[in-house]
Amino acid sequence: MTEAPCPRQVVVIGAGLIGTSAALALRRGGTGVWLWDADPAAVALAADLGAGQVLGTIDGSDGPAPGRCDLALLAVPPAEVAPVLARAQRAGLARWYTDVASVKAMTLARAREAGCDISRYVPGHPLAGRERSGPAAARADLFLGRAWALCPAPETSEAAVAAVTSMVTACGAEPVVTDAGTHDRWVALVSHAPHVVAAAMAAQLSRPSVPPEALALAGQGLRDATRIAVGDVDLWTQILTGNAAPVAAVLAEVAAGLADAARVLAGITGSGSPGAPAPEAGKHLALLLEQGRAGVARIPGKHGGPARAFTAVQVVISDRPGELARLFTAAAEAGVNIEDVGIEHSPGQPVGVAELSVRPDSAGALIAALAAGGWPVRR
Amino acid sequence: MTEAPCPRQVVVIGAGLIGTSAALALRRGGTGVWLWDADPAAVALAADLGAGQVLGTIDGSDGPAPGRCDLALLAVPPAEVAPVLARAQRAGLARWYTDVASVKAMTLARAREAGCDISRYVPGHPLAGRERSGPAAARADLFLGRAWALCPAPETSEAAVAAVTSMVTACGAEPVVTDAGTHDRWVALVSHAPHVVAAAMAAQLSRPSVPPEALALAGQGLRDATRIAVGDVDLWTQILTGNAAPVAAVLAEVAAGLADAARVLAGITGSGSPGAPAPEAGKHLALLLEQGRAGVARIPGKHGGPARAFTAVQVVISDRPGELARLFTAAAEAGVNIEDVGIEHSPGQPVGVAELSVRPDSAGALIAALAAGGWPVRR
Repeated sequence: MTEAPCPRQVVVIGAGLIGTSAALALRRGGTGVWLWDADPAAVALAADLGAGQVLGTIDGSDGPAPGRCDLALLAVPPAEVAPVLARAQRAGLARWYTDVASVKAMTLARAREAGCDISRYVPGHPLAGRERSGPAAARADLFLGRAWALCPAPETSEAAVAAVTSMVTACGAEPVVTDAGTHDRWVALVSHAPHVVAAAMAAQLSRPSVPPEALALAGQGLRDATRIAVGDVDLWTQILTGNAAPVAAVLAEVAAGLADAARVLAGITGSGSPGAPAPEAGKHLALLLEQGRAGVARIPGKHGGPARAFTAVQVVISDRPGELARLFTAAAEAGVNIEDVGIEHSPGQPVGVAELSVRPDSAGALIAALAAGGWPVRR
Repeated sequence: MTEAPCPRQVVVIGAGLIGTSAALALRRGGTGVWLWDADPAAVALAADLGAGQVLGTIDGSDGPAPGRCDLALLAVPPAEVAPVLARAQRAGLARWYTDVASVKAMTLARAREAGCDISRYVPGHPLAGRERSGPAAARADLFLGRAWALCPAPETSEAAVAAVTSMVTACGAEPVVTDAGTHDRWVALVSHAPHVVAAAMAAQLSRPSVPPEALALAGQGLRDATRIAVGDVDLWTQILTGNAAPVAAVLAEVAAGLADAARVLAGITGSGSPGAPAPEAGKHLALLLEQGRAGVARIPGKHGGPARAFTAVQVVISDRPGELARLFTAAAEAGVNIEDVGIEHSPGQPVGVAELSVRPDSAGALIAALAAGGWPVRR
């Protein structure tokens, strides 16, 4: 693979979470970014956030001259990759092309079918995301330390791979080169099947027979376990049907494991009665739980992930207009920049807890300022 | 139910995460706390953390005189509740008793079988926890705003319920009174079955055929969805076998939903090839995903439920000290109470987005005030 410098000019098609985040990351590195989105409000917000210059048409007629752009990043849903790529290539929007769809074999097949020039196209997939979508949720550090899969086809040129690799690196991500089929089997396991599993569990909560009182007993575990199930239904239907066979294989295994656990548990007599549970059932369940722990242990930690080691300062505040203003004014007067804030407030309680995240070297000054202002404060 | 003051003296048996957290919370409210644990190191650490005074024996012979304690909180694993309760009642450790096991029908049945005085015992279950366990992970605010189920038996006295309720309230939790059987069905759905589902998914990651490269593609979604599967295997085996029938019923439904999804996906031909996926399969999957989203939407948020629908107002702000103060001052001057705030800010970017949650009828005034102040603002 030849070395390539970070692209000087990039067109980002699609100003959602992924496209806008990549644009922000590239702009930080000095790359010129042009943005286009079918939704003018989305692209305007992305531009307001400093993600780049708005392109009036997807063909780039009001943007840089055709061929001036090194690279076009197509941050659109899977089904749109092939048509958008074909159109962009016809307009000569850029020298090299990549996309971010989480299904690669289907995307590549459709691009071939649409007559795209595959030698200039590197199918890609950044493994980063958030529950929230849209440009407002974008972050320049979204890809920091994250894997970004690149799945060049046999006909993809080395120069294309080099150019896209340098863009991925400029976004702070770690390129992982594999083929489309292998990629699809891997993400079926670590992303697509888990989405369906979370949805199938959460679907049980939606039954009319489940009273709100039952949901009131939900803890953080249920929230975490089902959070991914809030993803966009159309997008996820595209993803799942586009990666059908690998996802089906994983789901069938999980279903079998759960049906087995259900059968073993249903065979225990006398739960709720004095009889001791069958030791065999306990052993069977313990084995499944051990395998689950072993699986979780294999998931790598956030190595090199968003390096935001902020210190949290907790302040008890009263629930009335102006209280937060007074708090932030006190922080500002102490010269402390608040990096993030969260509010914990129990309904009906006259007070809540504001958790202010600041750089560690600012925590002392903030605590002193807030304590002087009469707020109960602790690190 | 008769009113009862916050207990003056409480014995906490079991200095793990839950017991120590409750002890810390009670101490903050001025309650005297005695602690016992089978592990001397655990109870010593809890005492060091300020959770109370160490009791030399579980019978309390070196503690307060028998009957001097209002309440004994048994924070021990499910299988130990009945024997510990019987022993504590024989020693006359306290007037009222409660426990924290997440399975209630079995616990109550075993307590009856052990000859315990049920009139003085309120089976309980705080819906709070952390991934970490042990006294070092304890927090006085662990129960703040969380549900704490109380499942009095027919023979439990009103005075016992009142005393335990006042302790629960003193811990900052919200008492939810129901019967043991109903509780067990509810927690099977919102806690026990989700644990097994997460484990069954995570177990797929533990297979030797899965290479580390596949796990390198794991994102935050997989981490969240499988996090609960790291729970203690022995404890969870006790819980699951102790609530076998209700858990089995939920798992069988989830397994059926996943087997169905696997079958539908496996029926799609030509994913990865030019053929369009069968629209019927897409519809089937979309329905499951919609049900999943509907289920997640029913889980109450930190403000106590989906009933409080705040309107989110997005404001582009610059990253400098005092900017948030100016923003909140403008909101306060417009008489608008900010219910919650989130800040999206990419490190290194000069601007970010503040998302202000307000009551719907305040959104117009807030937007007008911020727009007048020169902030780019969007609903």
